[in-house]
Amino acid sequence: MSASLAESVQQDIIKLITTNELNPGDKLPTEYELADKLNVGRSTIREAVKALASRNILKIKQGSGTFVSPGMGITKDPLGLSLICNDVNLAFDMINVRIIFEPEMAALAAINATKDDCMKIGTACTIVEDLIKNNEEYSKADSSFHEAIARASGNKIINRIVKVIHSSIQKNIFVTEDSLRNDTLIYHRQIVNAIKEHDVTGARCGMIMHLNNLRNFMTIKKRETR
Amino acid sequence: MSASLAESVQQDIIKLITTNELNPGDKLPTEYELADKLNVGRSTIREAVKALASRNILKIKQGSGTFVSPGMGITKDPLGLSLICNDVNLAFDMINVRIIFEPEMAALAAINATKDDCMKIGTACTIVEDLIKNNEEYSKADSSFHEAIARASGNKIINRIVKVIHSSIQKNIFVTEDSLRNDTLIYHRQIVNAIKEHDVTGARCGMIMHLNNLRNFMTIKKRETR
Repeated sequence: MSASLAESVQQDIIKLITTNELNPGDKLPTEYELADKLNVGRSTIREAVKALASRNILKIKQGSGTFVSPGMGITKDPLGLSLICNDVNLAFDMINVRIIFEPEMAALAAINATKDDCMKIGTACTIVEDLIKNNEEYSKADSSFHEAIARASGNKIINRIVKVIHSSIQKNIFVTEDSLRNDTLIYHRQIVNAIKEHDVTGARCGMIMHLNNLRNFMTIKKRETR
Repeated sequence: MSASLAESVQQDIIKLITTNELNPGDKLPTEYELADKLNVGRSTIREAVKALASRNILKIKQGSGTFVSPGMGITKDPLGLSLICNDVNLAFDMINVRIIFEPEMAALAAINATKDDCMKIGTACTIVEDLIKNNEEYSKADSSFHEAIARASGNKIINRIVKVIHSSIQKNIFVTEDSLRNDTLIYHRQIVNAIKEHDVTGARCGMIMHLNNLRNFMTIKKRETR
């Protein structure tokens, strides 16, 4: 099979998803139906579906079929960080980027968040709070909180870049620190309230405080390990 | 072959690249040597190499071997934009993100750029200038200019996010506009000079002017097509 055929069948399947407005979790036609519809062999369909699964556009569930992936087409390790040394400098590069990016995202969320967005951000905040109060690991729930704010920003590129950033953050070793956990409780709630009240400056500053608080911890740890 | 074996062989090959400090363009051992070294079958190696090529970590050149990709492990369409409607709103989302991000990147480049970085940024600038003066398409060269600044920022995450953003920008229809081409000449050179002189505010403001200039064009076009 030529590379261009495999490529164009991938495009055809993407087009099928977008024109039928399929959502994450929706089921695709069977391999047989796709082959028929797109007028190519089943092995071509199989190859294209595999490639789209590796791009996190489709999700293959053995025995039940092929579905639109909830991953929004963002691959594992989208920044290719596995290729570079994951050291303390990279952790600072990451928090520095977040401090450029996420305060503006929170400000936009304060401008654009719908009632539904506010509810979802509030729920994500409560989940983090419960984990912290029960002394459990909350890195993943924390990412979901930040991604909920990104969605509320109304900017589709921000939404995706934040997903890219958060899928690249290594498991945060600082979440075990008591004072960081307590500060997270406070700042998260401040951000949620500011967004709900459309307080743009409040949301921006809340996010700066929250991220800089984490950054201060990292700085102290860096000094200690010198 | 189990998914976990294919996955772990991918990790092994990545480790081989990082521990041997292979650079983009460097050649990998042959399939036979890899199978021997990693103690798995050649079909497993073939599958892993294919998967790494689709992640843009490796590049397979038919007949001459497998190489480390210059793409830094960043896939085609890393933000999954093929899944969302590419309309004027998405173009504004993109320029709005760039205006959050790239002025800070330029400011960091003014702080951290080495002499070598400055030379590379200058060369990238000259390439764009020549294309503009010869009335040729310069979108790709323009991306290279912005990516050279990103590398000079000294922040590896910024470097990669800018590559993600620029690989997602659709061919820019505005580059045919005469006044935009002229302004690009002026602002690019201002940014280059500010970075060379370590003028942080100058670099930041130069980038804001440059990007907002593009944004103004987009706004005028949007009004005209209403």
